[in-house]
Amino acid sequence: MPVSQVQNQRLADTLRRLLRRKAGNNIRKIMTRTHPADLANALVLFPIEDRIQLLTHAGSDDRQAQIVAALPATEGAKLLAEMELQRAVAIACEMYGDDLADVLGELDEEAAARIMAAMPPKESDDIQDLMRYGEYTAGGIMSPDVLAISATLSCAEAIRVVQNSPDVEMPFYLYVVSEHNKLAGVLSLRQLVTSRPDTQVKDLMNTHVVSVHTETDQEEVARIVSRYDFLAVPVVDATNTLVGVVTVDDVIDVIREEATEDILKMAGAGDDVEDTISLRSSFITRAPWLFAALGGGLVASFVISHFEDLLSKYLLLAAFIPVINGMAGNVGTQSLAIVVRGLATRRNTLSLFWKTVSRELVVGLLLGILYGIILGGVGWLRFVKQGHFVMEVAPIALALGVAMAMAMMVAATIAAALPLFFAKVGVDPAVATGPFVTTSIDIVGVLIYFNAVALFL
Amino acid sequence: MPVSQVQNQRLADTLRRLLRRKAGNNIRKIMTRTHPADLANALVLFPIEDRIQLLTHAGSDDRQAQIVAALPATEGAKLLAEMELQRAVAIACEMYGDDLADVLGELDEEAAARIMAAMPPKESDDIQDLMRYGEYTAGGIMSPDVLAISATLSCAEAIRVVQNSPDVEMPFYLYVVSEHNKLAGVLSLRQLVTSRPDTQVKDLMNTHVVSVHTETDQEEVARIVSRYDFLAVPVVDATNTLVGVVTVDDVIDVIREEATEDILKMAGAGDDVEDTISLRSSFITRAPWLFAALGGGLVASFVISHFEDLLSKYLLLAAFIPVINGMAGNVGTQSLAIVVRGLATRRNTLSLFWKTVSRELVVGLLLGILYGIILGGVGWLRFVKQGHFVMEVAPIALALGVAMAMAMMVAATIAAALPLFFAKVGVDPAVATGPFVTTSIDIVGVLIYFNAVALFL
Repeated sequence: MPVSQVQNQRLADTLRRLLRRKAGNNIRKIMTRTHPADLANALVLFPIEDRIQLLTHAGSDDRQAQIVAALPATEGAKLLAEMELQRAVAIACEMYGDDLADVLGELDEEAAARIMAAMPPKESDDIQDLMRYGEYTAGGIMSPDVLAISATLSCAEAIRVVQNSPDVEMPFYLYVVSEHNKLAGVLSLRQLVTSRPDTQVKDLMNTHVVSVHTETDQEEVARIVSRYDFLAVPVVDATNTLVGVVTVDDVIDVIREEATEDILKMAGAGDDVEDTISLRSSFITRAPWLFAALGGGLVASFVISHFEDLLSKYLLLAAFIPVINGMAGNVGTQSLAIVVRGLATRRNTLSLFWKTVSRELVVGLLLGILYGIILGGVGWLRFVKQGHFVMEVAPIALALGVAMAMAMMVAATIAAALPLFFAKVGVDPAVATGPFVTTSIDIVGVLIYFNAVALFL
Repeated sequence: MPVSQVQNQRLADTLRRLLRRKAGNNIRKIMTRTHPADLANALVLFPIEDRIQLLTHAGSDDRQAQIVAALPATEGAKLLAEMELQRAVAIACEMYGDDLADVLGELDEEAAARIMAAMPPKESDDIQDLMRYGEYTAGGIMSPDVLAISATLSCAEAIRVVQNSPDVEMPFYLYVVSEHNKLAGVLSLRQLVTSRPDTQVKDLMNTHVVSVHTETDQEEVARIVSRYDFLAVPVVDATNTLVGVVTVDDVIDVIREEATEDILKMAGAGDDVEDTISLRSSFITRAPWLFAALGGGLVASFVISHFEDLLSKYLLLAAFIPVINGMAGNVGTQSLAIVVRGLATRRNTLSLFWKTVSRELVVGLLLGILYGIILGGVGWLRFVKQGHFVMEVAPIALALGVAMAMAMMVAATIAAALPLFFAKVGVDPAVATGPFVTTSIDIVGVLIYFNAVALFL
């Protein structure tokens, strides 16, 4: 991420300098020659009036449409809302249906209606159909511009259909439909080109075509595309009528989002941006997991008050509670992250259960010994400084060190074993393992700590 | 993930039952009709001898090769190593070069050499070339079977080249080369089909072709593919000679891995599986961040020992340290996860800095008030139970509640602001923010807690 942010920044700086110098020609050179995706990343760094001005230099409506489509939908919507209606409509007409529907979906209803009213009726009808689908469904991310070939055509006729359909997104798979546009099969453009011209499409097509429904969740679509290495998957409605296509570039963002969900889940902060965007839903999603954490914290506090006599004799012991709990919590979070990530990328299969858990146990112990020695030393110095005798303090220092080593070892083991166990019994291993693990580590931490001190004294 | 794991399990159960009943015909039906990706997911649940037996029922060498290629490379390697050499070679010959190179790379050298020695020399030479590239580079993930078309051909001639190259992976982009196989341009199969047969390829091709170098890091390749919505990107060597192609399905796993890296980074556990797989590298990667956490923990312990007089009077105060620190840590981890994930999926742009931070502040405060009231109540009960007077305890209970609310509010704010600040100054916002944030929260937590108690008493 940092690298491309630097590139965006550099491109934006250049454009800003040229804008200040009113160097229209140079701006035009950049705006017409740079890739729309790069321009979009730079444009978001400008205030809205400058974006509109820069866009004017990008040339044809088609190219301007490509740049607007490459912006995040919210930013594209702002841009269309702020520019003259006539220009906004010209750009909208050049955008792919799915991109335009996303952008219009972000506008307020009145502004969207104004743009659609000025578009040719057929196009605005298509867009309105698209906007009816749920945002996170196959219908919401599909492109309606899908090339459907009738099963009754010959290869030569089908090639002519392809030649006469310039507006279709990347047709590498050709979907074959029977009467009434029902999905019947699939064949590749390559099969078409490499077959004899008089071959019938229906004899060539593969009838085992995997399709998704308009209401299919986008994550399920992403899973199908990545599981079977598809470049696209056709979308059908309830009557098996072909209505669109989802291409792999549309689901890459979905895959990225799904893959990063685990961060939210682990922290007990929901699993979707919807959960965290409004105050109310954020509160409702997060509160229950914190309640579990409170319960665990109170158990830890009962453990501590159980050792009140010890504490009253060596008050300084209280000061080391956050050190031991903090270190155990941190090493546990590391183990948890390693295991949850391994499960998400399928590197940690369940068959590696014992191997993974025992590796974390050993790493936790080794790290625990290292920091146990340091903490023992620091503790010894501080107790001596408080006026305790050297010999009296030795067992406390030893107890501190041993407690640190044990707590870190147990923490790493729990944190590795828990998500693997969850996965084994079919529970999502990421959900709220964070609060769950850190809380159990807090309890185990103080248990080990005070028992070690009691033992060595 | 849970859904498809259930499906794998069901398929595996069916196969296991059929194996027990020695129902070869039914096994054959499943092994020849199910998608290789699904079979691979089910096969990993069987012991190695059963996998070999099941594979025998899958039909042609080509189909068996597809199933082996769909397995994780380590599992595919185990399978080839355990079966008869002759069969392993037959399967290897049918695999795509890049898949086979991955599998052979996981075998010990002797076993790999034995298989390659039995393959046709040309194929084994190609594989050996491939295996020389770094595992995580464009060379390591590319397919060498790329369709190169000479710039001097006409469209009709080029189509004939496509027709005579059945072994090439999905040719939707056709790369055009000048003399000595230097990459010169790109055109789509569709352009070829839709142009007049006598058009020269060099007049049709797009010369602004984006390529990557064999040594380019796979994450950079993934970034280029997803940024520009490419379906494939050509790979060239140092002399601009076309040597292979990386297709989008090859980088989806890379994208998933890159997207999930943040979990590891946040926890201070490295950013790559390499960092966590061996004991030694895991220890070395994780120890430094824990050292930072130890430093913070010790600061917190100095804060606590500063309030020794207060502690000696109300020993029970020590018992609530883990409650307040734990709750602040958990709410902070939630805020951190929301912000880091927002940055990774580009939902949280930096322009939302103040909006995001103030939202987390408010949510933290609201959650803090809720749990502050509960903690105040619990604390009041426990102090009273210990024999303190109701009126004496009231300020302590109030202090506990206020401390909880304040600590949670500050924790959420720090945890949201820190990664955004990092991103703003160009530091990766995920790296080790976990230990950094929880440690600063530990310090702030005890500071707020003991000062609140001192204030109210």
